[in-house]
Amino acid sequence: MKAKIITIGDEILIGQIVDSNSAWIASELTKLGFFVTSILSISDNSIQIKDTIKSSLLDNELIILTGGLGPTKDDITKNTLCELFNSTLVFNNDVYADVEAFLIQRGANMNRLNKDQALFPKDATLLRNRQGTAPGIWFEKDNKVVISLPGVPWEMRGIYKDEIEFRLKKQFNLPENYYQTIMISGIGESPLALKLENWENNLPDCIKVAYLPSLGLMRLRLGILEKTAKISKEIVEKEVEKLHIIISKYIISDTEASLQEIVFKALHNSNKTLSTAESCTGGSIAQMITEIPGSSKIFKGSIVAYANETKTNLLGVNPSLIEQFGAVSQLVVEQMAEGAKKALNTDYSVATSGIAGPDGGTDEKPVGLVWISVSGPNGTVSEKFLFGKEREINIKRSAIAALNMLRQVLLEDT
Amino acid sequence: MKAKIITIGDEILIGQIVDSNSAWIASELTKLGFFVTSILSISDNSIQIKDTIKSSLLDNELIILTGGLGPTKDDITKNTLCELFNSTLVFNNDVYADVEAFLIQRGANMNRLNKDQALFPKDATLLRNRQGTAPGIWFEKDNKVVISLPGVPWEMRGIYKDEIEFRLKKQFNLPENYYQTIMISGIGESPLALKLENWENNLPDCIKVAYLPSLGLMRLRLGILEKTAKISKEIVEKEVEKLHIIISKYIISDTEASLQEIVFKALHNSNKTLSTAESCTGGSIAQMITEIPGSSKIFKGSIVAYANETKTNLLGVNPSLIEQFGAVSQLVVEQMAEGAKKALNTDYSVATSGIAGPDGGTDEKPVGLVWISVSGPNGTVSEKFLFGKEREINIKRSAIAALNMLRQVLLEDT
Repeated sequence: MKAKIITIGDEILIGQIVDSNSAWIASELTKLGFFVTSILSISDNSIQIKDTIKSSLLDNELIILTGGLGPTKDDITKNTLCELFNSTLVFNNDVYADVEAFLIQRGANMNRLNKDQALFPKDATLLRNRQGTAPGIWFEKDNKVVISLPGVPWEMRGIYKDEIEFRLKKQFNLPENYYQTIMISGIGESPLALKLENWENNLPDCIKVAYLPSLGLMRLRLGILEKTAKISKEIVEKEVEKLHIIISKYIISDTEASLQEIVFKALHNSNKTLSTAESCTGGSIAQMITEIPGSSKIFKGSIVAYANETKTNLLGVNPSLIEQFGAVSQLVVEQMAEGAKKALNTDYSVATSGIAGPDGGTDEKPVGLVWISVSGPNGTVSEKFLFGKEREINIKRSAIAALNMLRQVLLEDT
Repeated sequence: MKAKIITIGDEILIGQIVDSNSAWIASELTKLGFFVTSILSISDNSIQIKDTIKSSLLDNELIILTGGLGPTKDDITKNTLCELFNSTLVFNNDVYADVEAFLIQRGANMNRLNKDQALFPKDATLLRNRQGTAPGIWFEKDNKVVISLPGVPWEMRGIYKDEIEFRLKKQFNLPENYYQTIMISGIGESPLALKLENWENNLPDCIKVAYLPSLGLMRLRLGILEKTAKISKEIVEKEVEKLHIIISKYIISDTEASLQEIVFKALHNSNKTLSTAESCTGGSIAQMITEIPGSSKIFKGSIVAYANETKTNLLGVNPSLIEQFGAVSQLVVEQMAEGAKKALNTDYSVATSGIAGPDGGTDEKPVGLVWISVSGPNGTVSEKFLFGKEREINIKRSAIAALNMLRQVLLEDT
């Protein structure tokens, strides 16, 4: 069953916002068994919207549109769809009641533009929006479905989960795709591919492999399309077993779990606590860990020590070490980790100190130089890294490297 | 001059990664004066790639492809382009030297797959890659250009800046588009649209307006296409002046500056320092501020106080207040802000304490309840917010609301 995702809005074409909606929808549709043939972003232009939907319907059974449903003048999707499906807008009591209830809850008043949102195509199915004022629209023709959703991410996701998922399952006879992703760290794409060359050459034809590098991590995805889930799962699991023999030391997880989730689980299972002492990562590690629901069970807090006086005053780093070796040095980062462990009274602590850039580098200590330390019940370890020149990337890489070091220490400790 | 951006890779179609490359390229091309007609993601499929490029060349002068250039088996773009342009791959000494130099710098060895990366289409222009091993490829035919770039974001950006930008300026006679974005906070999309209705109705035809809501902020974009920059700028500036009369109190910036950049500038200009005391935001505010190059000039650090004992031990919050009113309360968040200001020795401090969810809510204190406080030289203020049910959104909204409160306090103090 083929699907296409179309995003409407000039803000994407001029690069003002990143389209994260499409990836979310693609992931949901793939889970349901759809084959997403393409993802397209086009302009707020009625003719382009109509032409694109018409031609997309030739090759696809489902089209999901996002964007252009708001109350303002630049939002033209609703009218355009009416033209395309020869429908007209009529006042819809249910939408009106939903908009009114939403506004009352926020302490806001109904205005004329909100009232206009109650105008709904008379030949479409209403997809109610509990997180905002623009409802979703479901048009159906010749067993093909066109769905239009607001572009605000949490509204779009809410409507999908509440109103769309069950309807798609009912409407379409869906096959089951099967994907498994292995998380790998500590080896580059091309040495990894060489190690896996024999394995890849002997894979069953139905398995497709993709290498997905991201900062400090590599995801290896094994996929089977349009098979029954049971058989697919067995075939893929057999291949994953082989991978565990060939590249065991680089595999960090057999699931799509993030590094912070792996670390969270390890700490939670062993009933241990964590703190961080962050200089160059500026709170990124704490932020990544506290994204996880329930992280307060293992995470007590962080001291983001950006200034040297903060390293000294709050983490107890010896000022003479900073003077002698600089803040970006092994002895300082180790004292930071040990200091946080003590000040925050935790079993483990992770510390970072580096030169994120763009300024602050010297010949001896260039931009990209980062020291990371992990301190735990069995002592303190540290490692030096040399990343690149881009500040944002250096910060992210440092945070990922720190979590990966912590993961390794936790593995050894259990 | 029309351009299309095409991303190649199943990982995008199954929703495994968000395509942030296209937004970056779109923004750069728009700045150069291109009109990006659409952004498309397609599969790693040779036939689909060829068909798509052929049909896209009918309507566009420039096509930029990303993805599928790596050293592994699933990367098929290079061969597919050779088929399409009737070219063949030949060994290229420059690419070989670049790959070798890159690997030596990383302490890695040249392997067979890396050597294959030195095979380059003989009829294309080489776009050297200083951040990785896969070079960019520039094909030209009938005054139209097709560029293929690796999908790794920092490699793609590096090649664009080093090798593509100047070539595009030379190749095409580009008009100048003009966009200005006004940042707005504290008013919803539809009340704002009503306030601006008259203004919008009287706008010159050449100006296009878009409302771009994001968490806690609204960007209002005024755009003029294919005019000379000078005239466009004048027309737009006149309209921005009118906006300042109609909605002055909601405008936070006349540029695309982020809230953290606005706050950074205000602190830097007045030579003041900042710290944060974060509970529910878990380090997000510190992370947002330290993204800014040079933020160490104003930011001394943060105490992420996730556990109550951390609030007490490091921020000096009175434990009996936590017992009596709970950690999510006005008095506690004010003591957090004041405690961080003292412990980190700064002029200003921002504190957050809230229930991010999904668990931990009660009837009295539901998920989404957040207290935020700003403490400065002239005292401490605090405010209660009620956000929604999604953890990730609650964290982000809290961080943005905290920065906005700090912005307001800084405005009053100067």
